Amino acid sequence: MASIEAFEDHCWKDVMSADDIKLYSPYARETFVGPDVAFLAIDLYNKAYQGGPGRPVDLDPQYPNSCGMFAHRAIEPTKKLFAAVRRAGIPVFYCTQDSRPQNRPKGAVSTRRYEKSANPTDHGIYHEFTPEPTDVIIYKQRASIFQGTPFLSHLNLLGIRSLIVCGESTSGCVRASTVDAYSNGFHVSIVEECTFDRSEHIHKVNLFDLHHKYVDVMHVEEVVAHLDGLAAKRPALQAAE
Amino acid sequence: MASIEAFEDHCWKDVMSADDIKLYSPYARETFVGPDVAFLAIDLYNKAYQGGPGRPVDLDPQYPNSCGMFAHRAIEPTKKLFAAVRRAGIPVFYCTQDSRPQNRPKGAVSTRRYEKSANPTDHGIYHEFTPEPTDVIIYKQRASIFQGTPFLSHLNLLGIRSLIVCGESTSGCVRASTVDAYSNGFHVSIVEECTFDRSEHIHKVNLFDLHHKYVDVMHVEEVVAHLDGLAAKRPALQAAE
Amino acid sequence: MASIEAFEDHCWKDVMSADDIKLYSPYARETFVGPDVAFLAIDLYNKAYQGGPGRPVDLDPQYPNSCGMFAHRAIEPTKKLFAAVRRAGIPVFYCTQDSRPQNRPKGAVSTRRYEKSANPTDHGIYHEFTPEPTDVIIYKQRASIFQGTPFLSHLNLLGIRSLIVCGESTSGCVRASTVDAYSNGFHVSIVEECTFDRSEHIHKVNLFDLHHKYVDVMHVEEVVAHLDGLAAKRPALQAAE
Amino acid sequence: MASIEAFEDHCWKDVMSADDIKLYSPYARETFVGPDVAFLAIDLYNKAYQGGPGRPVDLDPQYPNSCGMFAHRAIEPTKKLFAAVRRAGIPVFYCTQDSRPQNRPKGAVSTRRYEKSANPTDHGIYHEFTPEPTDVIIYKQRASIFQGTPFLSHLNLLGIRSLIVCGESTSGCVRASTVDAYSNGFHVSIVEECTFDRSEHIHKVNLFDLHHKYVDVMHVEEVVAHLDGLAAKRPALQAAE
Repeated sequence: MASIEAFEDHCWKDVMSADDIKLYSPYARETFVGPDVAFLAIDLYNKAYQGGPGRPVDLDPQYPNSCGMFAHRAIEPTKKLFAAVRRAGIPVFYCTQDSRPQNRPKGAVSTRRYEKSANPTDHGIYHEFTPEPTDVIIYKQRASIFQGTPFLSHLNLLGIRSLIVCGESTSGCVRASTVDAYSNGFHVSIVEECTFDRSEHIHKVNLFDLHHKYVDVMHVEEVVAHLDGLAAKRPALQAAE
Repeated sequence: MASIEAFEDHCWKDVMSADDIKLYSPYARETFVGPDVAFLAIDLYNKAYQGGPGRPVDLDPQYPNSCGMFAHRAIEPTKKLFAAVRRAGIPVFYCTQDSRPQNRPKGAVSTRRYEKSANPTDHGIYHEFTPEPTDVIIYKQRASIFQGTPFLSHLNLLGIRSLIVCGESTSGCVRASTVDAYSNGFHVSIVEECTFDRSEHIHKVNLFDLHHKYVDVMHVEEVVAHLDGLAAKRPALQAAE
Repeated sequence: MASIEAFEDHCWKDVMSADDIKLYSPYARETFVGPDVAFLAIDLYNKAYQGGPGRPVDLDPQYPNSCGMFAHRAIEPTKKLFAAVRRAGIPVFYCTQDSRPQNRPKGAVSTRRYEKSANPTDHGIYHEFTPEPTDVIIYKQRASIFQGTPFLSHLNLLGIRSLIVCGESTSGCVRASTVDAYSNGFHVSIVEECTFDRSEHIHKVNLFDLHHKYVDVMHVEEVVAHLDGLAAKRPALQAAE
Repeated sequence: MASIEAFEDHCWKDVMSADDIKLYSPYARETFVGPDVAFLAIDLYNKAYQGGPGRPVDLDPQYPNSCGMFAHRAIEPTKKLFAAVRRAGIPVFYCTQDSRPQNRPKGAVSTRRYEKSANPTDHGIYHEFTPEPTDVIIYKQRASIFQGTPFLSHLNLLGIRSLIVCGESTSGCVRASTVDAYSNGFHVSIVEECTFDRSEHIHKVNLFDLHHKYVDVMHVEEVVAHLDGLAAKRPALQAAE
């Protein structure tokens, strides 16, 4: 939870002009994690980390779509976030690309980038964030996790009303998924330090857009604190069951 | 194509009363296969054929959800239909149950029937109707092929405006899928002899409902004749490409 | 709530064969109203009641789509149901046809029946069930209330997980809407005495299908009793707010 | 139509770094208007033009969400675009906010901005772009025209496969709508000079994102030339009907 005064205390400060900040001031509000929350890890697949923590512009010829240094910078905070999610025991969803044979006609792809066919391991989940057996993995063909998948019906079935979101890319799958989540009636918290893109400028402008219009961009320590509050209530809940 | 006079020349004649037929007479119209058509084979998986051509009520204890005699009765006409579809070269979609690990939370299922966990081969496509490499297979969790799948975006991408549909069950996945298709703006032709259920009475009343409200129920020879018309135009089309 | 033994104690007894009842016995279960429930009244518009309580087959030439005697038979139980809904204070949704100018291209209609253009009052809500100012009215173009409307996002926003449903027609908008509700992850209770169609046979077979596959068909007194239980807890809840 | 060499000849040149342009070079391709195209004018309502052609940051206190100078700069090119659309005779869709009474629960809104209740004329279409009687107007509650509306079923019904899009705001309703269009299988052309936002920086970065990942951002003269090509074929088409 962050106060209305802290609404602009985020990474976009150095790329947004004073006029733009002023123009968007009517969006300022307290931010928080919503009720009945689930955790969503977007596209934490191997491809995003390939080539190590270099600059994406240097890595791209050999490792297309690698987020390089931005992916690797997010590993430690994302591990902390996952640990808190596990302590809190909330439902966990992952998504990644659908790579099953015969799953689509030619052209049904996430973006219009020309891509060679993927290596089978490209879209496996990165080893630091291996799913647990009770987690659900959504396989998607488009940018948004809601597009052409059963994710929305799963959220309804579980009574989920809010999401904590991390992953990549901010301007692609994270943006498309979180706009859909908001427009479908969910409260969304994006964890800033655990979200990344291939371009820092594009990352920041997209987080700015999302924060003002649709979601609460929050810092990892705020979200971890909230999750630890949920974890503290678990024994009582479980005893009551 | 069938004339308006032939609108009620279908299998439901012996279960619908004269008053009901009269009540539904304002729905009478010519039936046809629509433009820009694709073929959809719904749930032609092994489970529907298990136990052979017996009565479903007898088979059910050992082979839950087998359509028995009704599934086997449809094999020959469905083979004819597939052959005509292949000659015409139209896009082909199959659907079946999603059985990938960790694909859903508990309770996200097609119907409220209590079911034991499926055998791995249960939801493979029946050997008489093996998909070809260019066909698309949609894996679904609910009754309708549109629910929680990328099928609709595939149809849009390919410019499909109409569907020819066969498979099972009439009152379950066929009904849910074809109502969704109609409501999403597509023209739908269900092939009567290639569509089946576990109960003949329920099959007939559902076909009656669908035919009047949403789709054109057509006979297999009508649809095959239409497809052969498309096939006859193929060499010209291919030469023009 | 009804016990598993009472699972077949419904109106379809005289139209379903013993074999069909046996075939569907694996669907038997306790029925109930689910948690976090809202009320949905489907298509209780003037057109359904026009011409009074006659036989639909006699009324249809002058009053197309009137449900006649079946609509009028449901008025008293539906008034009781509405009264209980209001006492319980749960969210209330209505739906009806969208009749705003320029709202659709030609052909985007609920069913394939040929229809003359509607009278402006045809799709107003019947005077016995006038909406209250805090109710939400969903205007739809197709059979299902979920198709092309914001209803699903409203349910998510309010944290609704279950629906109590009444209205018409059983084989049309009620069936399409409740299958969609189930497939989207909601628990659905259809109130038998407050649901109707133009044909009693079709009404009964559709309720049978829905009850076994997707929803809990319940008697009005069971649902009223449940709502009165919710009403009894209201003062405590409101005091706690 | 624009060649692959002209892929970056757009308004974002002065805000995107050379590294970012290089990073996104694998997205470069020819741009074009797709087949079976319809025209979509997003949120050309009075509110966007209020207060005249001033700076939005100055207008906002009195005219919230006015796009001021950016809205007024787009009027002339948008009039040219509309004229070409009318000459070509392609289907035309508008969208605007749904302001019918009792249409939603509290909180089902496009963005999280705090807003006073709208003036009844705020969401009427601006007088320069008055709809014609055969146009379709989609009333939406969220950012995307696809979210909670019948738009997708209308496109399918009409056999539309591509969209030409103009309107506002680039970072809000235009972005959400065009990402949804692409992900639903449509080809999208956004007309640069006829699209606007309240912040020029945000406008440019969003057009950059959209152009590379999902749509073809095109210049108004390119799109007008394409439409005039369609218009030239009309008499032949109409004679052939």
